[in-house]
Amino acid sequence: MGELTIWTLDWVPERPRGFVRDLRLRWACEEAGLDYTVRTIPFEGRETNHLARQPFGQVPFLSDGDLELFESGACLLHLARQSERLMPRDPAGEAETLQWTIAALNSIEMASVPWWFLTISGEAENRLTGWLGQRLGQLEAVLAGRDWLAAGRFTVADLLMADVLRVPEVRALGHRPASEAYVQRVTGRPAFRKVHDAQLRQFAAADAARG
Amino acid sequence: MGELTIWTLDWVPERPRGFVRDLRLRWACEEAGLDYTVRTIPFEGRETNHLARQPFGQVPFLSDGDLELFESGACLLHLARQSERLMPRDPAGEAETLQWTIAALNSIEMASVPWWFLTISGEAENRLTGWLGQRLGQLEAVLAGRDWLAAGRFTVADLLMADVLRVPEVRALGHRPASEAYVQRVTGRPAFRKVHDAQLRQFAAADAARG
Repeated sequence: MGELTIWTLDWVPERPRGFVRDLRLRWACEEAGLDYTVRTIPFEGRETNHLARQPFGQVPFLSDGDLELFESGACLLHLARQSERLMPRDPAGEAETLQWTIAALNSIEMASVPWWFLTISGEAENRLTGWLGQRLGQLEAVLAGRDWLAAGRFTVADLLMADVLRVPEVRALGHRPASEAYVQRVTGRPAFRKVHDAQLRQFAAADAARG
Repeated sequence: MGELTIWTLDWVPERPRGFVRDLRLRWACEEAGLDYTVRTIPFEGRETNHLARQPFGQVPFLSDGDLELFESGACLLHLARQSERLMPRDPAGEAETLQWTIAALNSIEMASVPWWFLTISGEAENRLTGWLGQRLGQLEAVLAGRDWLAAGRFTVADLLMADVLRVPEVRALGHRPASEAYVQRVTGRPAFRKVHDAQLRQFAAADAARG
């Protein structure tokens, strides 16, 4: 385990503030009690200025000593192996946490991100709405029966799933009380409040620096 | 490590044959030399008949002794920890394999699956086409420079990425010679041919059983 550096953009417009995915990595480090530094790359030219480190031109990416990783989901699983607070060490708890982490990425976010993309492009009702609604309904049935997704306690799977579900447009799509309570439970954790505030402050400071 | 059972449907229509994701798990077991059994649940009533084991009503899921996991990506990462053939054991190789496994799920498939869904729904040109095309182009640039995604050798990341890329509609979207050569390289492996044939045979046998 080396020195952890979380890389993000040096500035973003208003809309994505509080949602840029470096937040996931900061949050995981705070929950785990891992020291980390946040460093930035320029927003201008972001499509091509860091392809050697993130071939899709996105953030975040993580340095862990000599290791470099991109994909927030991969970074989270990497960090989770460094702290039992993020992922239990018993095989059943670990398998359940892994399963729900991937479910957040590939069953929920795979529907919610493209749906959101169509929605903000002006197609409020689109062909992905039914698909996303079905997935969110299935997840609601799970969350109606328990407070945390895996192992009966907070894990990195909750961190990620709550981050996927807290998107305002997703939250507004239908009435899902257990999911809403879950989002409030997970994002009510001090570590989330701290890193959310930190991201907002960083981009506000970047506004000031831009004049 | 317990007895491995891969669960899939007992029958599917023509179209998804050769693409049902139990193939990913069979393939991983074959590459790793792990013994496994394939068992089935009924196609009829699949939306609700196994929600206790797969809350989104999908296949595959995996039994590993007493453990149960769903999400093909999670099952693959779980199996990869049982075999160095699927994932190198050195920290850099492991991080790189993890990163590209998640990239297949959350950067490529997150665009390709919803795009495919819109495409087969009759929207051949849709608002996701540009997004998917950009991602596939970025991946093409990576694959133009190397034969395997991670660690200079075949890993579970290639198994998954090739399975995502080999979808005919995705393959037909634009000219990407390095990606096409990659798909042919990875799916040319004997383990893929074996499990692909096995899946086709299983569903053909189910046709016969249905009369």
